[in-house]
Amino acid sequence: MKQSKQTDVVKKIESIATEDVYLRIKKKKLPELHMPLRTLTNVKYDPKEGFFELLEKKKERTLTASTIKTFAQTLRMMSHAKTIIATDDITTKREMYYISKNWAEAAFNEQPESDAVMDDIEAMMLVNREQLGFIPEEKGGEVAGKLIVVDKDPDTGKEIKIDCTKFGTGSYSIPISVEHLKFDTNAKFILAIETAGMFQRLLKHNYWKSANCILVSMGGVPTRACRRFIRRLSDAKKLPVYVFADGDPYAYFNIYRTLKVGSGNAAHINEYFCVPEAKFLGVTPQDIIDYKLPSHPLKDIDIKRGKDAMKNDPFVKHYKEWQKAINQMIQMKVRAEQQALAKWGLNYVITKYLPDKLKKSSTWLP
Amino acid sequence: MKQSKQTDVVKKIESIATEDVYLRIKKKKLPELHMPLRTLTNVKYDPKEGFFELLEKKKERTLTASTIKTFAQTLRMMSHAKTIIATDDITTKREMYYISKNWAEAAFNEQPESDAVMDDIEAMMLVNREQLGFIPEEKGGEVAGKLIVVDKDPDTGKEIKIDCTKFGTGSYSIPISVEHLKFDTNAKFILAIETAGMFQRLLKHNYWKSANCILVSMGGVPTRACRRFIRRLSDAKKLPVYVFADGDPYAYFNIYRTLKVGSGNAAHINEYFCVPEAKFLGVTPQDIIDYKLPSHPLKDIDIKRGKDAMKNDPFVKHYKEWQKAINQMIQMKVRAEQQALAKWGLNYVITKYLPDKLKKSSTWLP
Repeated sequence: MKQSKQTDVVKKIESIATEDVYLRIKKKKLPELHMPLRTLTNVKYDPKEGFFELLEKKKERTLTASTIKTFAQTLRMMSHAKTIIATDDITTKREMYYISKNWAEAAFNEQPESDAVMDDIEAMMLVNREQLGFIPEEKGGEVAGKLIVVDKDPDTGKEIKIDCTKFGTGSYSIPISVEHLKFDTNAKFILAIETAGMFQRLLKHNYWKSANCILVSMGGVPTRACRRFIRRLSDAKKLPVYVFADGDPYAYFNIYRTLKVGSGNAAHINEYFCVPEAKFLGVTPQDIIDYKLPSHPLKDIDIKRGKDAMKNDPFVKHYKEWQKAINQMIQMKVRAEQQALAKWGLNYVITKYLPDKLKKSSTWLP
Repeated sequence: MKQSKQTDVVKKIESIATEDVYLRIKKKKLPELHMPLRTLTNVKYDPKEGFFELLEKKKERTLTASTIKTFAQTLRMMSHAKTIIATDDITTKREMYYISKNWAEAAFNEQPESDAVMDDIEAMMLVNREQLGFIPEEKGGEVAGKLIVVDKDPDTGKEIKIDCTKFGTGSYSIPISVEHLKFDTNAKFILAIETAGMFQRLLKHNYWKSANCILVSMGGVPTRACRRFIRRLSDAKKLPVYVFADGDPYAYFNIYRTLKVGSGNAAHINEYFCVPEAKFLGVTPQDIIDYKLPSHPLKDIDIKRGKDAMKNDPFVKHYKEWQKAINQMIQMKVRAEQQALAKWGLNYVITKYLPDKLKKSSTWLP
């Protein structure tokens, strides 16, 4: 589970280039790259590990007339990764595509082609692409509360301490790549919040002070950087992670399930991006009843989503509590948002709901 | 142009409630609320003012059998605004909708209804809704570089100074409401950047240090908070604002035009949210030629967008330079992204493109 160091990553690149390509050519064999098959049929869920794990199925990329272009692109991109690690630089997925425009016949025609090769390299090396210096385009994830983030000055390499209690109504915005960050905190837990509006409310009232916690705004489905940040922080400081999201299938599966155990089509990186310690604090279907929340009718697609999850999702199939909750929601035929608590007063969420829920772990979902 | 103080806003609420409602009822007249008509037919563009301005057309909301519910909702929402200003709290648009669930028959059925009433109140009072304590759901806008943001501790009211040179590879995330912020800086300009990836590159290389500037990541079309932040900062410190975006119609009109002069359907708030001082630094159609950038074919919809703008957009009709640029782009039939500069090396943008462009204001667009 521990992260590879940059020197290890470089060694891995060199070893693949040497053994699978260079030495095979010297022995007059065809060079051959091996990467795991990335589909739901090639994952398992083991709650001890805590994430969707890759099984053994692999695909091979042998140098032939038809694979020669992709093969060349794969090697050039590995070589580029080696250079950016050496120069401590970064490359966005979009930039990678443009850089290839100088590779003569090996140039990518469209970005999806270069993205696919990047995914292959990531899977082949069993590292996450941020460790190779490749970063996504999108940013996301804000932090406030009892946390000091330790970063480095990009020029001098000197440590910079960022105190997340000192942003007023603003907050600390998580960088696109978080591999180099360290943490210092005496908070008791991380509260990961679905909406920016709810985050702003808790911030405005300095909720993190009274609750002694760290607030993270996910702004919908968390980005890779946001998930990795929560994971690294939770690992480093042994902090529990509570997720406060809407009470609907989208929040349960697209947001919470992805944060906790990862997803099927990115199984080769779940190990780095999932947060196995996460618990779902609310809004649960039972909360809709207990707190008399205004609700909205479930759409047919929500009901289908829930039924599908009970049948096919290894995570839901593992937890009786989730099956019960989804059945309850389907029977109630309604969903509710975290903002619905405002019906009982703007700050009911701070004075009543969150303190109640935090005290009673029996009301959470696993 | 100057911002109303909170006490002025409260006075305005009271004066409308007294004169248009209470006193009219006492005189046995029907109460009557007046608000400007918010359509493109009711705006003009005057480059001296620098934004789309409302003309005189108004609509009236008189209390009748058919308007009674909306009328009651408008008054209740004004009353709620008065309360949150008094308690220095905030309310998201979504929360406002849920709060109405306690208004018995005056409850809103759907959020679009409560949003429309909020827009009406905003326009009627000629303030932006953040001044009424109403905040959007979405967040956005990150800042790094030579700037100290002065905020207040929500508990103690004590000043908090946030030094945006001290966040390493991270950044300062703009709060949803920025009306209360003050600024301290000796930077020479603000660079507003379209993509999070480009922002991260400039940040990673401490570009703000050598260029003596403030970097703002807009992450696509800037949010209200991001626009208002740039505007207030630029006003307060007399800073020029340079926009560094893709070279395509979306960046020109949806991002740049909206940032600089506002939009038609929100004309009542352009005064607060536009940044009349903004200049378009690049990527211009001429840059695509001068810097030999990899490009993509324009789509039919892009060409239509450009032609429509030349015919109907008061901003484009005002500036010959923009007409020329759009004509040039339509003839070239291509667009290019800011990341396309990576073809010439990852940091070509820092060592060559930005320094060149900043020196030569003749290459900008107005």
